[in-house]
Amino acid sequence: MEKPYVIGMDMGGTNTVFGIVDTRGTVISKSAIKTSTHPDDVNLYINDIYVELSKLIDAAGGIDKIKGIGVGAPNGNYYTGNIEFAPNLPWKGVIPFAKLMAEKFGVPAALTNDANAAAVGEMTYGAAHGMKNFIMITLGTGVGSGIVIDGKVVYGHDGFAGELGHVNVMRNNGRLCGCGKSGCLETYASATGVARSAREILETSTKDSLLRNIPVDIITSKDVYDAAIQGDEVAKEIFNFTGKILGEAIADFVAFSAPEAIVLFGGLTKAGDLILNPIVENMEKNLLPIWKGKVKVLFSDLKEADAAVLGASALAWEL
Amino acid sequence: MEKPYVIGMDMGGTNTVFGIVDTRGTVISKSAIKTSTHPDDVNLYINDIYVELSKLIDAAGGIDKIKGIGVGAPNGNYYTGNIEFAPNLPWKGVIPFAKLMAEKFGVPAALTNDANAAAVGEMTYGAAHGMKNFIMITLGTGVGSGIVIDGKVVYGHDGFAGELGHVNVMRNNGRLCGCGKSGCLETYASATGVARSAREILETSTKDSLLRNIPVDIITSKDVYDAAIQGDEVAKEIFNFTGKILGEAIADFVAFSAPEAIVLFGGLTKAGDLILNPIVENMEKNLLPIWKGKVKVLFSDLKEADAAVLGASALAWEL
Repeated sequence: MEKPYVIGMDMGGTNTVFGIVDTRGTVISKSAIKTSTHPDDVNLYINDIYVELSKLIDAAGGIDKIKGIGVGAPNGNYYTGNIEFAPNLPWKGVIPFAKLMAEKFGVPAALTNDANAAAVGEMTYGAAHGMKNFIMITLGTGVGSGIVIDGKVVYGHDGFAGELGHVNVMRNNGRLCGCGKSGCLETYASATGVARSAREILETSTKDSLLRNIPVDIITSKDVYDAAIQGDEVAKEIFNFTGKILGEAIADFVAFSAPEAIVLFGGLTKAGDLILNPIVENMEKNLLPIWKGKVKVLFSDLKEADAAVLGASALAWEL
Repeated sequence: MEKPYVIGMDMGGTNTVFGIVDTRGTVISKSAIKTSTHPDDVNLYINDIYVELSKLIDAAGGIDKIKGIGVGAPNGNYYTGNIEFAPNLPWKGVIPFAKLMAEKFGVPAALTNDANAAAVGEMTYGAAHGMKNFIMITLGTGVGSGIVIDGKVVYGHDGFAGELGHVNVMRNNGRLCGCGKSGCLETYASATGVARSAREILETSTKDSLLRNIPVDIITSKDVYDAAIQGDEVAKEIFNFTGKILGEAIADFVAFSAPEAIVLFGGLTKAGDLILNPIVENMEKNLLPIWKGKVKVLFSDLKEADAAVLGASALAWEL
């Protein structure tokens, strides 16, 4: 008998979410652990997953019901099953993660970039349903991307295509990125980038702001959002700056693959029009005439964690 | 009987080259006209082509031997056969060029971006032979690009993908581009970009240079090359600057599609190592660790005009 379930797992810089998914794409159960509890040993991290996930597997009828595990992870390589040199994860170098998971659980495992997995989820169940050319950009702890051309995720020559969080958006005095470079998109357009922008603006201006009630070192993107919806001008300026950088970068991405839409996903999208308006305005300003007014910018309409879990799980059906 | 020939045509900002190609990919005859003689009427331009091309067609045995015409043109749309809003061509708006050519010659015609056509030529006969993931960048009057992923040219949602000459490489005080935007790659990394760099450097410095023997308004990229191979420091600085901008941009392109190679084509490649060394050095500096030392930068090994003509001609076999 065909096994009725797959496991989808989304590894983020902060949290790792996993769930059991049925053939219809329903997440029937879900749990999560912190990603960085064991920075020195990935096997202890896998053990934490095993403990939590085994509860869900048992409730679903045991490991015999599970066809395989699909993993979305930063710098996950679809071709090799390795996580290689991921700047936002605690484990350095090359981690044969798909192999380790398969050995631990006794079922096959496949792996891709977390954002590629989210793109597959979005194409199958979400805002990009029916689209053959779109770019998914995940705005979380970092900035990830999944590029879909002619209905297929672009993996490139080596399996690592779609690292749009690390294109340069500031050649001079750009912010230092976790990857070792400076001026990467993700140092500006991620949740942590918004917090850095807040600190910079508060420290270099004397403008009044609700954000001055919070110690500058612990301001988060959510604090900026909370201030902005109360009309705080500095907070709105921070979203305008973030949206400008992202919109300008997106215009260059359009010049590459001429997508029908850009789908945005992740924590920053909770800012709604505060971030969407400056993105669209600055994208349009920087598009070639042939694309002006033609490229949709959409927010994911899947529940934030589900898109990545569903996308990752889709990999497992193909095992 | 199968018709034995196709016509390949490459429309550049300056020259239009066309040739008759046989089934083996040999250009059996070739001619050219200027592109901009009739800026007000594209039909007069087509008539010029007709006069010249008819001589080649007659010598090949008449129009009955010709299966069709493939055209590579700036902003050429593979899906519609139109040239739309091409910044480096004299005719504005939307030109139904494939249709006009088909009517004039009485054979089918297809059209794509000139750089996409060159990429097909390179993949079939040139430096990218056997590669499934590469990016072709044409460094001529402007900067064009043809992106190949999984062995296929990327056309995108609307047929216009691959306009990498118009990504932004200078957010502040960027040079005005023919497309209406500022800071586009092609304002720096084209033959005209090199000439602009020469003028800028000569006018803002007092350094000695062989280039000061030439009136500043008529300096060409060839003059810069001639000075550089004689050891002129200012001329070498111009190529270093051009290569730096191009190498930095290429690093971002790699983050998009993870190609096996970048293939460079067109006038600027005649500068050889003077341009290649700074390109590679600055690309490497800006690559993510996963790609350092892994991406080839190659010059086209096809004769300059033939790659585009051969690539365009390949479209016609599929008609």
